[in-house]
Amino acid sequence: MTKNTKVNAAILIIGNEILSGRTQDTNTTSIALWLNSIGVKVNEVRVISDIEGTIIDTVNHLRKAYEYVFTTGGIGPTHDDITAQSISKAFNLEYEIHKEAFKILEAYYKVGEFNEGRQKMVWMPKNANLILNPTSGAPGFNVENVFCLPGVPSILKSMLGGLKDKIVGGDPILSHTISLKTVESEIAKSLTNVQEDNKDVEIGSYPFFQAGKLGVSIVIRSEDQSKIDKCGKEILKFINKKKIEVVDR
Amino acid sequence: MTKNTKVNAAILIIGNEILSGRTQDTNTTSIALWLNSIGVKVNEVRVISDIEGTIIDTVNHLRKAYEYVFTTGGIGPTHDDITAQSISKAFNLEYEIHKEAFKILEAYYKVGEFNEGRQKMVWMPKNANLILNPTSGAPGFNVENVFCLPGVPSILKSMLGGLKDKIVGGDPILSHTISLKTVESEIAKSLTNVQEDNKDVEIGSYPFFQAGKLGVSIVIRSEDQSKIDKCGKEILKFINKKKIEVVDR
Repeated sequence: MTKNTKVNAAILIIGNEILSGRTQDTNTTSIALWLNSIGVKVNEVRVISDIEGTIIDTVNHLRKAYEYVFTTGGIGPTHDDITAQSISKAFNLEYEIHKEAFKILEAYYKVGEFNEGRQKMVWMPKNANLILNPTSGAPGFNVENVFCLPGVPSILKSMLGGLKDKIVGGDPILSHTISLKTVESEIAKSLTNVQEDNKDVEIGSYPFFQAGKLGVSIVIRSEDQSKIDKCGKEILKFINKKKIEVVDR
Repeated sequence: MTKNTKVNAAILIIGNEILSGRTQDTNTTSIALWLNSIGVKVNEVRVISDIEGTIIDTVNHLRKAYEYVFTTGGIGPTHDDITAQSISKAFNLEYEIHKEAFKILEAYYKVGEFNEGRQKMVWMPKNANLILNPTSGAPGFNVENVFCLPGVPSILKSMLGGLKDKIVGGDPILSHTISLKTVESEIAKSLTNVQEDNKDVEIGSYPFFQAGKLGVSIVIRSEDQSKIDKCGKEILKFINKKKIEVVDR
């Protein structure tokens, strides 16, 4: 297989609790940082409700638009956990007991504790591939390029490592941050010039307010370290000329 | 105007820094909680890159699909701030200097400090309505049902109050949470029965792990307090029967 230099992905957060503002999503950050480290760039995130039709339509759109899709949430034992059956419908697959998942959970729980509620968690799309869960037993799964993970952040994080062999990333996305004691308007024009001279590098400018400090972080991102270095030098050049202070952050 | 009982919205987070995992989005939570309080329910959130075509297409989709759209990010002075010109293109409007915004920033900055970078922030879609910014001067704006806010969380929060007169909400969305010392599988079946008997109420079940406590929060949401009360009673009934402990959270 020829390695793609650029590989993209979408994240789909399934859960009314994020949309209502009750729960702060942190899974996007965890997944995005991990994907970056293996050379996969997240191009889009969507957060949707626990509604079957919405899940089916969104998954069917995203799985065609991106190389990988990661869903979070909705694979637990309660009535509002409808991700597995929705994915089955999206792929036109039977929704059935996954024998290997059944064996895993039967061994995980004490005799008599693998009750009806827990057994719901072994219902999956036919022939789904399991994603092992070192924290709480119940596996996630993938069908083709759609990877379904739980919503609880600590459990999700513990499962990412086990995904590594299933994802073929491109070149890792490298980044370099230069933080400055200045305001964006001071550097806007010079930074535009650097961006125009380096169109294939992503240069972002982010104001920060932290511990009484007002400043701007410039973030340079590329798969090519030499391109980052070139931009960094050009930025430092105008910063020195303007006598702007570089700060730790 | 007849008041709609259900009013919906989408949030569009514009910014590579969220997609890369570098910055944790918190604006979704701030906007969603505030919208709930004035009777607007967030049905979808999308996070997209700073790419003009992507912004235009997404805004044009969302503004037709939902009653309100709130964008965050991309209205500052740097080259990666392209929300205002993208919104102009989405609505087929001229992108031009907004006279009122110009006056506000001219008065806000000291003489000589309203430089070229800062002047970029008064370029907006023709006839845009301003959203005042009590924190840092530069206003946001809305065109029809699309409201454009900045990405910096503290500034965004300070601007929400000024939006109240521009948004016509429905009935406030009420919620009641019951937190339990149990695991989801213990209550899954009984909770399904309550949901089936109360189809127009949203009942969510969320496991938590906090300070050594393992538990489940059940969240009941509706515009109608009496429906929440009815569900709450039915849930407490099966909880008492199962001798499950209710906990503070």
